[in-house]
Amino acid sequence: MSKPYVIGIDMGGTNTVFGIVDARGVVIASNSIKTRTHNNINDYIDELHHEINRLLEANNATDKIHGIGVGAPNANYFTGYIEENVNLPWPTPIPFAQMLSDKFGIPVAITNDANAAAIGEMTYGAARGIKDFIMITLGTGVGSGIVINGQLVYGHDGNAGELGHMIIKRHNGRLCGCGRTGCLEAYCSATGVARTAREFLEIRTDNSILRDLPIENITSKDVYDAAVAGDKIARDIFEYTGTLLGEALADMTVFSSPSAFVLFGGLAKSGELLLRPLREAMEKNMFPAFKGKVKVLLSELKEADAAVLGASALGWEAKQAVMAPAAAVGTAAPAAPMA
Amino acid sequence: MSKPYVIGIDMGGTNTVFGIVDARGVVIASNSIKTRTHNNINDYIDELHHEINRLLEANNATDKIHGIGVGAPNANYFTGYIEENVNLPWPTPIPFAQMLSDKFGIPVAITNDANAAAIGEMTYGAARGIKDFIMITLGTGVGSGIVINGQLVYGHDGNAGELGHMIIKRHNGRLCGCGRTGCLEAYCSATGVARTAREFLEIRTDNSILRDLPIENITSKDVYDAAVAGDKIARDIFEYTGTLLGEALADMTVFSSPSAFVLFGGLAKSGELLLRPLREAMEKNMFPAFKGKVKVLLSELKEADAAVLGASALGWEAKQAVMAPAAAVGTAAPAAPMA
Repeated sequence: MSKPYVIGIDMGGTNTVFGIVDARGVVIASNSIKTRTHNNINDYIDELHHEINRLLEANNATDKIHGIGVGAPNANYFTGYIEENVNLPWPTPIPFAQMLSDKFGIPVAITNDANAAAIGEMTYGAARGIKDFIMITLGTGVGSGIVINGQLVYGHDGNAGELGHMIIKRHNGRLCGCGRTGCLEAYCSATGVARTAREFLEIRTDNSILRDLPIENITSKDVYDAAVAGDKIARDIFEYTGTLLGEALADMTVFSSPSAFVLFGGLAKSGELLLRPLREAMEKNMFPAFKGKVKVLLSELKEADAAVLGASALGWEAKQAVMAPAAAVGTAAPAAPMA
Repeated sequence: MSKPYVIGIDMGGTNTVFGIVDARGVVIASNSIKTRTHNNINDYIDELHHEINRLLEANNATDKIHGIGVGAPNANYFTGYIEENVNLPWPTPIPFAQMLSDKFGIPVAITNDANAAAIGEMTYGAARGIKDFIMITLGTGVGSGIVINGQLVYGHDGNAGELGHMIIKRHNGRLCGCGRTGCLEAYCSATGVARTAREFLEIRTDNSILRDLPIENITSKDVYDAAVAGDKIARDIFEYTGTLLGEALADMTVFSSPSAFVLFGGLAKSGELLLRPLREAMEKNMFPAFKGKVKVLLSELKEADAAVLGASALGWEAKQAVMAPAAAVGTAAPAAPMA
């Protein structure tokens, strides 16, 4: 391969992290800029371009880049656009793949952050060699990337894999950011855990070290620390969260019969506090044909590198634009990326 | 193509229907035998072989068969086996694809009935030209066949697409045939509708022509006839069933973002009695990104031919066994069938 590197860009609501990655998944160098400094998207792209070029020059990697992969909120693999309703300072939709490709003169592929994580895990992480798995990202929200027969599932419009918005409580469910009620994300995200803490502390009367904190400020990290310290209410919060997530994973299994789920993100680092009730609930609620067959794995990507690695893996696919530039944005054929 | 026909075999619990089908999906000739006549599977296959040969000879089609496709309960595309726990008179697992292939000297591909229906609909029916759809079969149970990017989803073990066993009532749900409670199938199948009728008639006190029937014998057809005649309870039963199914379809959408659902089977013929509440509930519960984008279609396969057509479409794929006989059973590569 004449071009030995790819660039991975992970655009978050606060930071945009980017790195140069080789074919074995080693992050050669990385850096970041603030996402929200510029009110004009072109200024943001100018700064990103400038900083990435500096990184390339410092690492003697200019002209050695095969492609650029981007994970960004609501980014659509098919269209190359960042679509509506995201927590970014610019008007949407944004033809982000085309804009970057024009700026860098390098093919660009984009997808949402959870899909990027799934591709990264399949290429470099816990899902290497696994053809059917579902990535669940447990962060501020709950994201997912679904891989079937070695191919990421994009759906007819590029928006497949919104498993955080499966409705797990049909009646009297919590209000979700999507405007509906009862979504998985409203319970099993970091913010969901904090909401559960407030509910439990209000309903129950037993002691808890969480009661020493201002109730509105309690975070999932506070709940984790309290649970590790043996706090009963905190442990019950993880029991509740893990049970709901395990029930949901059992329901996801009847769809695509994955051989594994891969968990990623802050909550996934809670270890057995979350995993024990999760596995118990998953097996208890599993359709008989799948009982005992589905593994629950934790991400194996180094946390600091994970987002960039996931995005970068997509950079290896970003070649259609080279062979057929006219199809780069808006009309890209919905070809399976890993075929 | 030198061999212009395929054979489709639909093995049901009562009848086994088979037909000779051409490349345009015309059923040239068909016939059937009783599934349960023989206690020995070999005798069943002998009779099937004999009758199919008679049909081939009568239609001058011997030596013109490209492959045999079979839809059968719990049949696994990867292994070629009919797996455990099915309502058939023979011990399982049964290496059915290998047994048929040995008998006929023709490549055989098998899958479960709902997957066969999805392939049939994609090849000849309402889903022609649709790359992402979900087939829902509403019969005695609720089956499903999922198509993503033009390929049927088999999952890591061949058992994907058991959407009838999504749990739609987490607490106090009805007992399902699978041993768990609250499955979609326990509510939205023909038997589910009959159970709803019994529940409604017991709980409610208003008049209904359904009260003229022995309550234990009420069928979904009775409920349909009563609803068409304007019976309030019967109409409410369809409202309830359609609402539950619509809510479930909305949840399925976040998985694979299909552009359509295709409904098949007895209940699907209830028309707007089922479809109006179904569409309303689906849209009301739809994740915003998918609102107004997902069609609900009815099967376009002629009912008498549908099962055979669906199975036969799989016959066109049944060629691996010719090129690599050793891989026909048990070790077949999990290649995507429609690739």
